[in-house]
Amino acid sequence: MPSSATWDRLTAALGRLPGVGRRSAERMALKLVRERDGLLRELREALDGVARELRCCARCGSVTPAERDPCDLCTSARRDGAVLCVVEDPADIGLIERSGEFHGRYHALMGRISPMRGEGRADLRVDALVARVREEGFREVILATNTDVEGEATARYLADVLRDTPARISRLALGLPAGSGIRYADAVTLARAISGRHEA
Amino acid sequence: MPSSATWDRLTAALGRLPGVGRRSAERMALKLVRERDGLLRELREALDGVARELRCCARCGSVTPAERDPCDLCTSARRDGAVLCVVEDPADIGLIERSGEFHGRYHALMGRISPMRGEGRADLRVDALVARVREEGFREVILATNTDVEGEATARYLADVLRDTPARISRLALGLPAGSGIRYADAVTLARAISGRHEA
Repeated sequence: MPSSATWDRLTAALGRLPGVGRRSAERMALKLVRERDGLLRELREALDGVARELRCCARCGSVTPAERDPCDLCTSARRDGAVLCVVEDPADIGLIERSGEFHGRYHALMGRISPMRGEGRADLRVDALVARVREEGFREVILATNTDVEGEATARYLADVLRDTPARISRLALGLPAGSGIRYADAVTLARAISGRHEA
Repeated sequence: MPSSATWDRLTAALGRLPGVGRRSAERMALKLVRERDGLLRELREALDGVARELRCCARCGSVTPAERDPCDLCTSARRDGAVLCVVEDPADIGLIERSGEFHGRYHALMGRISPMRGEGRADLRVDALVARVREEGFREVILATNTDVEGEATARYLADVLRDTPARISRLALGLPAGSGIRYADAVTLARAISGRHEA
């Protein structure tokens, strides 16, 4: 590969995308140079469009057209203003919306507490969360962080931080995934499915 | 996420980069929207620079400044014009250059024969390879494809295709990696290291 500043700048920028290491960045850059009249042009046009038209909602963190900030989810009068769902990543909002089971407001943390990756409270939108819970008067805050170690730790931390607000703090249920079998469940999931059992 | 054409176009373009699935493309797009004054701007500028300044060498396939096509590797009189090294990916050229052991010309196939991914001869620069071997009069062609199943199959295929050219066809040696231990080598590597043993 040429030791050119142009090439280095592209691989550096690609390498800052999530999940992209130096070697993948080089493979991506190569494909872009090779398809200069195809993918390169398309990606440039797409990024121009995004720069022009999209931003993150200042309130919940989801992606919204530049002219609608706060976003529709935050302002719609048809949504329940009493319940707030806290997610790690704005992409999770779309998944929860597709479940059709939640109709309140959202708050994306933009990450999780992760000592391994050096991410702590300062990197998350925790202060904004506390301020919103106080100011917007939510009655319930659902902590919809992931159920892995870091997601659980983040949820416990948030529950602690939100303790002296009037809101009730809840967490998504753990249990067997729908359409699966008991033999595919790990021991922790099965234990939680048993302890959380309900009347049939 | 918003069902906007702008968003969809970006995730589609990102999803065409190597190794990027739908979910990773969404995470990347999100980071770009979030860092619209940082990473988004940097990536756009880098791509503009690449579109302006770089292309793939029409002869060997490596990345080269737009005003030097064929590239320096192809035209330099200080390189050995009698030996051609065939690689799967132009990125491999840089790795071989860093070894300091090869001083001839290169030819990047831009892939490998991979029935799993539906890549066959038509997707590779095989015809161009055969034409170069005939026209540029190489005395030796080193097949430096990878040593996994598809790389080996590609090498065998190329050896067959190049059989009726005057060039001698060779393949990189298999053996123990330098600075490693016998106990870390897999059985195939060890077998090849034994069968390829040399005078001490």
